[in-house]
Amino acid sequence: MARFAYVNGRYVPHADAAVHVEDRGYQFADGVYEVVAIQNGRLVDEEGHIDRLDRSLRELSITWPMTRRALGLVMRQLIARNRVENGLVYLQITRGVAARDFKFPKGVKPSIVMTTKRMSFGPAVTVSAGVKVITLPDIRWKRRDIKSVSLLPQVLGKQKAVEAGAFEGWQVDEEGYVTEGCSSNAWIVTKDGKLVTRNATSSILNGITRQTLLRIAAQEGIEFEERPFTVEEAYEAREAFISSATTYAIPIAQIDDRIIANGHPGTLTMKLRQLYIDYANGVEPAVRSTGTGSGAG
Amino acid sequence: MARFAYVNGRYVPHADAAVHVEDRGYQFADGVYEVVAIQNGRLVDEEGHIDRLDRSLRELSITWPMTRRALGLVMRQLIARNRVENGLVYLQITRGVAARDFKFPKGVKPSIVMTTKRMSFGPAVTVSAGVKVITLPDIRWKRRDIKSVSLLPQVLGKQKAVEAGAFEGWQVDEEGYVTEGCSSNAWIVTKDGKLVTRNATSSILNGITRQTLLRIAAQEGIEFEERPFTVEEAYEAREAFISSATTYAIPIAQIDDRIIANGHPGTLTMKLRQLYIDYANGVEPAVRSTGTGSGAG
Repeated sequence: MARFAYVNGRYVPHADAAVHVEDRGYQFADGVYEVVAIQNGRLVDEEGHIDRLDRSLRELSITWPMTRRALGLVMRQLIARNRVENGLVYLQITRGVAARDFKFPKGVKPSIVMTTKRMSFGPAVTVSAGVKVITLPDIRWKRRDIKSVSLLPQVLGKQKAVEAGAFEGWQVDEEGYVTEGCSSNAWIVTKDGKLVTRNATSSILNGITRQTLLRIAAQEGIEFEERPFTVEEAYEAREAFISSATTYAIPIAQIDDRIIANGHPGTLTMKLRQLYIDYANGVEPAVRSTGTGSGAG
Repeated sequence: MARFAYVNGRYVPHADAAVHVEDRGYQFADGVYEVVAIQNGRLVDEEGHIDRLDRSLRELSITWPMTRRALGLVMRQLIARNRVENGLVYLQITRGVAARDFKFPKGVKPSIVMTTKRMSFGPAVTVSAGVKVITLPDIRWKRRDIKSVSLLPQVLGKQKAVEAGAFEGWQVDEEGYVTEGCSSNAWIVTKDGKLVTRNATSSILNGITRQTLLRIAAQEGIEFEERPFTVEEAYEAREAFISSATTYAIPIAQIDDRIIANGHPGTLTMKLRQLYIDYANGVEPAVRSTGTGSGAG
């Protein structure tokens, strides 16, 4: 089966999917993106992701390349063409193609690119064993609330993590507080059992999976705090985990050279993970009602 | 005359110059670039730019896509094909094309793209009248010494400047010191006549034009200091200017709402500008000998 990408109005074979060298995404990282999981044919947290896309675009004064409704249709069309039952859709919007100049060009149409990937969300070794994360300085710019493609610091951080045999790198601010992972949000369950994740300011990207997990926690009567936590507090935590659109919640067994608790996936972590999977499957109508439009086309 | 771009081994019409949507430059800003001026057919400060390119690539562990010698030949070939007598060559190297994943992909060939632009370096209105700059917070990442395409903060800063009727935005660190312009280095001549520009650390990009201007100043016996200066010191300066590969030195008439000195281009600024133009033309052999290979092919 041929795999397709969507590029500026056309469905093209993946190998031929190209953008102009003067696309501002290529020359200036002047664009934004979203990754939406597809589970059993359903788009997970679609509305949250598209709301955040809209916010990112507004923050950068990039206009929508099509209506929101059309975007939803294209996503479904591409997923159908590529027959993705479980996986993800990646979509990127940039300011468009223009002769290279830092300032915003006038009268330029934004570029939009969409690709899909097949993936399994089933229980993996990483989930049953827990993963290792390392901590590293957060060297990013100050508008981390915008989901831009200006991702070079995260690339370098992730590479450092991989080279250290870790699954993820936790970025740490100058005061010693964890901001977030290179491509995920950071969570702990404190010694006294409280779920903690950093409050959403411009210091972190407000993960859509993060937000849904907090909603699920609230509905389940699980106490949580949104506040920064230090690396030391994480070392001493009862549980720790990461969350992202494509990993959901994944337990952490080790942070740097410190084993977290007994090194096994935490009870609360695994409960939240299962609740999120149920939610993604549409099993939890009470929670689902806070998001909409998750049905696959 | 058709205008060509060079893309991964081929000279292609500019309109057809494209890269794959999974080029890491597009998805992660995982690449570097250089801009080299062409004056009267000569590549200006070529060796300095290619040395810095080499450093940027090494800092990101991106391999050279071709030999340095071949790169020089391709630049000359493209300039010849596009018949550029005065203008610039833009070259960008990214980590290459790979299925989207933050960590470095294995076995991937770096991408290289080159374009040219015709431009005039003659005396412009901006030079004779001096330009306005505004100051704004420096929100960039911490590795500004790497000339990466992760330029979104600079894009936003330049746009703010343009909207304020200014030519450039001077980015200011948290202590109130000017780091540099969005696409240029920042200079002042203090009240007591000392030439000052910020010392090159990871807080700024070490401009090649900046380095050559300092070499020229040293040769001319012009005293200078490499140190941070505050916005207030700049307001009170006798002269102020910016430097970059494509503007050389351009005098500043106004910073924010403050006219600099009498509002006219400074004497030292205009002297350095002329010396740089002479150097670019090969008039100053003593200075030129510190760079090589400036002859156009």
